[in-house]
Amino acid sequence: MTDLAIVGATGYGGVELIRLLKDHPGVRLAFLSSETYAGQRVCDVYPHLDGVETPLRALDTAVVGESDFALLALPAGKSMEVVPKLLDAGTRVVDVSPDFRLRDPALYPRWYKFEHTHPELLQEAVFGIPELRRERIASARLIAAPGCYTTGVLLALAPLLADGLIAPADIIVDGKTGLSGAGRTALTLGYHYPEADEDVAAYAVGGHRHMPEMVQELSSLTGSEVRITFTPHLVPMTRGILLTIYLDSLAGAGVDDLRSSLQRRYADEPFVRVLPEGRWPHTKWVAGTNFCFLAVGVDDATDRAIIVAAVDNLGKGMAGQMVQCLNLMLGTEETSALRTPAIYP
Amino acid sequence: MTDLAIVGATGYGGVELIRLLKDHPGVRLAFLSSETYAGQRVCDVYPHLDGVETPLRALDTAVVGESDFALLALPAGKSMEVVPKLLDAGTRVVDVSPDFRLRDPALYPRWYKFEHTHPELLQEAVFGIPELRRERIASARLIAAPGCYTTGVLLALAPLLADGLIAPADIIVDGKTGLSGAGRTALTLGYHYPEADEDVAAYAVGGHRHMPEMVQELSSLTGSEVRITFTPHLVPMTRGILLTIYLDSLAGAGVDDLRSSLQRRYADEPFVRVLPEGRWPHTKWVAGTNFCFLAVGVDDATDRAIIVAAVDNLGKGMAGQMVQCLNLMLGTEETSALRTPAIYP
Amino acid sequence: MTDLAIVGATGYGGVELIRLLKDHPGVRLAFLSSETYAGQRVCDVYPHLDGVETPLRALDTAVVGESDFALLALPAGKSMEVVPKLLDAGTRVVDVSPDFRLRDPALYPRWYKFEHTHPELLQEAVFGIPELRRERIASARLIAAPGCYTTGVLLALAPLLADGLIAPADIIVDGKTGLSGAGRTALTLGYHYPEADEDVAAYAVGGHRHMPEMVQELSSLTGSEVRITFTPHLVPMTRGILLTIYLDSLAGAGVDDLRSSLQRRYADEPFVRVLPEGRWPHTKWVAGTNFCFLAVGVDDATDRAIIVAAVDNLGKGMAGQMVQCLNLMLGTEETSALRTPAIYP
Amino acid sequence: MTDLAIVGATGYGGVELIRLLKDHPGVRLAFLSSETYAGQRVCDVYPHLDGVETPLRALDTAVVGESDFALLALPAGKSMEVVPKLLDAGTRVVDVSPDFRLRDPALYPRWYKFEHTHPELLQEAVFGIPELRRERIASARLIAAPGCYTTGVLLALAPLLADGLIAPADIIVDGKTGLSGAGRTALTLGYHYPEADEDVAAYAVGGHRHMPEMVQELSSLTGSEVRITFTPHLVPMTRGILLTIYLDSLAGAGVDDLRSSLQRRYADEPFVRVLPEGRWPHTKWVAGTNFCFLAVGVDDATDRAIIVAAVDNLGKGMAGQMVQCLNLMLGTEETSALRTPAIYP
Repeated sequence: MTDLAIVGATGYGGVELIRLLKDHPGVRLAFLSSETYAGQRVCDVYPHLDGVETPLRALDTAVVGESDFALLALPAGKSMEVVPKLLDAGTRVVDVSPDFRLRDPALYPRWYKFEHTHPELLQEAVFGIPELRRERIASARLIAAPGCYTTGVLLALAPLLADGLIAPADIIVDGKTGLSGAGRTALTLGYHYPEADEDVAAYAVGGHRHMPEMVQELSSLTGSEVRITFTPHLVPMTRGILLTIYLDSLAGAGVDDLRSSLQRRYADEPFVRVLPEGRWPHTKWVAGTNFCFLAVGVDDATDRAIIVAAVDNLGKGMAGQMVQCLNLMLGTEETSALRTPAIYP
Repeated sequence: MTDLAIVGATGYGGVELIRLLKDHPGVRLAFLSSETYAGQRVCDVYPHLDGVETPLRALDTAVVGESDFALLALPAGKSMEVVPKLLDAGTRVVDVSPDFRLRDPALYPRWYKFEHTHPELLQEAVFGIPELRRERIASARLIAAPGCYTTGVLLALAPLLADGLIAPADIIVDGKTGLSGAGRTALTLGYHYPEADEDVAAYAVGGHRHMPEMVQELSSLTGSEVRITFTPHLVPMTRGILLTIYLDSLAGAGVDDLRSSLQRRYADEPFVRVLPEGRWPHTKWVAGTNFCFLAVGVDDATDRAIIVAAVDNLGKGMAGQMVQCLNLMLGTEETSALRTPAIYP
Repeated sequence: MTDLAIVGATGYGGVELIRLLKDHPGVRLAFLSSETYAGQRVCDVYPHLDGVETPLRALDTAVVGESDFALLALPAGKSMEVVPKLLDAGTRVVDVSPDFRLRDPALYPRWYKFEHTHPELLQEAVFGIPELRRERIASARLIAAPGCYTTGVLLALAPLLADGLIAPADIIVDGKTGLSGAGRTALTLGYHYPEADEDVAAYAVGGHRHMPEMVQELSSLTGSEVRITFTPHLVPMTRGILLTIYLDSLAGAGVDDLRSSLQRRYADEPFVRVLPEGRWPHTKWVAGTNFCFLAVGVDDATDRAIIVAAVDNLGKGMAGQMVQCLNLMLGTEETSALRTPAIYP
Repeated sequence: MTDLAIVGATGYGGVELIRLLKDHPGVRLAFLSSETYAGQRVCDVYPHLDGVETPLRALDTAVVGESDFALLALPAGKSMEVVPKLLDAGTRVVDVSPDFRLRDPALYPRWYKFEHTHPELLQEAVFGIPELRRERIASARLIAAPGCYTTGVLLALAPLLADGLIAPADIIVDGKTGLSGAGRTALTLGYHYPEADEDVAAYAVGGHRHMPEMVQELSSLTGSEVRITFTPHLVPMTRGILLTIYLDSLAGAGVDDLRSSLQRRYADEPFVRVLPEGRWPHTKWVAGTNFCFLAVGVDDATDRAIIVAAVDNLGKGMAGQMVQCLNLMLGTEETSALRTPAIYP
């Protein structure tokens, strides 16, 4: 059994990590940090996590550093300070904050309003989508697990760009997200039930902070100069993200070529499914799971290609993917602790 | 008091018409048709319509023809048979079915799977968006009130195309709709609560039947050859439509030019509001109303313009707009029976 | 036109008051107070209140005192300080806080954790349910409009107790409320969308602070010594309260006797409806209205009577009832500004 | 590996059984019946059940009879015909229909509108709540798994009645259920999203068909003559049941005595948790699980005891409990396939 620390264990991402890892065959939850609930046991704070009697403790990097692995679910700007100490202690880290996702340190002040204090780690950190960088993840010290929308966009587009089937500079992503992406700590009016219920609205129009990591990774993976218009929307549900992606096909590539490209690429993947013609993914299919469903169509009137992707923002979009990365780093079965199907309905 | 018939009075559109018209100062609800509930009084079927003791009757065109005006909320293919008889009887008609929206009869077999039996009326019918054809509506015999998405798209784009600010052939419309658009009669699994709750999905990808009317009207209003990619999505709420529209600006037109164009056009309109920079509409703002909110932005990374529009699919997207047309035809105050603000929260 | 002030105009109750009163024929919104949004216009804060260009101002009792009437939607403990000044200035007040509902000042420290500073007004304040105290309301200086659950309980039980049909000391009220009752100011985790969505839970079990006012009023209205077990629950919706009330009938009173008692009492009431046998109220029927629906049944196995009541917590449970009281005080039509039916679906 | 058949595999109960049993260590899904989807594979009908490639087949009792165990999720009246054939073939059965729950055949015509054709099996069938009849379940041929509300009521009350702490003839149960209890086959207006959303209503007031089995079992388990008033309500969510139970304590039993009774009884149970004073269960804590949470309080004003119970109607209220029974019958670990915590939030 490998000792594992979860830092930020009582936010939605942390709780989902505990839910998944509670009975993981190769891992022991050695340290669970929470500033809010320090001193209490997990099962007392969250009765649904029955049997997890581990006490919650305030973050102590020295103690975390005794674990072989640490999963970090901290707000932007916090991981940056914690990660270097853990790496120094020999702890391998999967970090789901944005702090090590961007390679260019100049992007941090612009998109996240802080100067990066450890830019040397930005080159080392491996962007944590196993389907796209499995080998590098397996041997990495530091994984920067991607933002909630980015996983869907990269899984949908990386193969098509690599195969030269779509125009890289003319990509539109219209995202719809459930409300758990807001987290549990900073309560704001927009997530107050009476405000969010029975409402749909766009936000961060014209410049969402996850766009730069999408562009960076797609450009890096495929060598294309990618440009993306990304508009996210809040929809009244708790979990799930649906991405509707509008594309210009290149050089006579038809909808079947696009679908084939994705099917080929993901044929052996345990967590990515490409739907047959005429079927479109539902976010309900992925609730609580590490799956990504993809479907490809074409608009008859304009010949524009349309791809729809569904992931759970707390699953493949967060905790599920972190566990998948951890499994690769452990050298254990990649699907360990990730096999339970979606709760349905 | 003018005698008015509502045909299809117990569907969601019909009930909304009764709610709005119940206390209209110039109208008497003379005839309310319902096949399902014929023989019962409205207030017995729908207790919330307290005081509406009018008996529901099966459709009888001869009796409807005694009314001065008829509002029709019938399924596609049904209005086509009823409308000619009413017009012959001298009754002026506002029809919210698609049966008289398309000018080209050849589009009906393709998109609605029926041959049109009265193509001669397709040229006469006036497309019923008062902001775009106020004078013609006032004097018309037959109004074809538009589909639920079309109103938002036309209000957002007609001024911009007329002012030559956007590329007509490169328009993408991503729509999100609440579930009351499905109506109340044909119960299907997709609208069964446990299936629709906590779910988002695209439907009719690549060819929704409301796209042709959008293209027809925008082309007709502006003389441009318009092409639209339109993808609708179901979101788990009852009322409201949000449209996110992606555009290529023309000839150096900036976001301020686009916003100004809309503000100019709708400055004196009672039901269209253009939001200031940085503010984006919520569907909650229009629940139960005849309002349309519009906002304009630009994507910094790609210079693509983005317009977001919100309407209530049963309000400005259906019953509200029918009442607005009726008011124009009556020559009464255009806002009669339409002044109650949105229920909020 | 009578000048009216709304104090606490930008909470959910205040916004509902503006929605209802915006076009009231006898009232001018002279002063709208808001600490949070002072300096802005209503329509800028709440775009759905289009046309309400009144500026919001911080509370100034001297200015409020210039209005003939004031509607107060302030938190518990705040009204107590404001009301005496307004009464001194000759302003008649409808207050929806609990501050003047209880006659016994000793109950305030126990249930609301404050000492009452103006106990002399507790005897004068009229409990504001028009169906039960219409004449006194019409001539009152100070109305204490009841809590959101209390209205339903009193409307359901006052006639039955007065007619001696039910045991006064053996009443159980199981309440289910939508989440707008929490208000808009104090954001707490329990009302954070991801926590409240897809969840039902009881709260304040064994002692909700609205119970004493139910007991006081029922005892006062009927001379019985009333005892109530009241358990409220949160359900995932925005508006509406459903009350399920379990009763022991007295002296052979059957379900028909109970229903007749209610029907007799409310036969001429514009806002209370007693449903026929076998029909049960839905909260959806009252959304946005001042209606209360009541239904009576009996449990075959135990002969226990069951009454179900539905009101909108922001309508008859708050702003609607305040407007109804105001109409009585103004001597205008009691249903003014309250005639719009529920939004449905 | 034991061969297992699921009959009625594509309803909500059936799908939940597949979700749970897919990776059960001791069971092979040998036969999955579905009339609607016969001929398709499970994973094609339900993409979220990825990897379950078993073909669905129309029900064939001869083939089902080849399995060692059969789990039946059929509508009322259907199981009655199937079960005897399976028992004859030597297949042990867990049936979740009401067909074998009631011991008195005379109750079937009254509550379910059919004559029972195999009354001889009513005495043999074991009522399937493991916490209450563990040994009998382990050796049974036929388990009648209880209705969705009954599990919560029995777990809450059986210990208290057995310990003589509460009055058996004065029990009130107020139930709140999510909408998946309606199943997936018979689409009715009450479960149509726009009707059910933002609504709460009571149903089956005065006589729900699950009341007789509650009374039968509590009377049988405790020797008391039990009488229950049971009123269920629909709330707008998909999964979960909350029961609020009002009781008269006997002979000076206080709230601590009641809580202690439950704690003692369930101290070693893997799936029942009794909350400490002041904490009340949320349905969200049990979503997708086999847990039941119980809490006990007292109403200060009336000394009435209040118990709140939460279960997932498709978990401990259906599929979870069936699997728990199956585990007992198999002699395997009772918690096999039931250890995944609730999905949260």
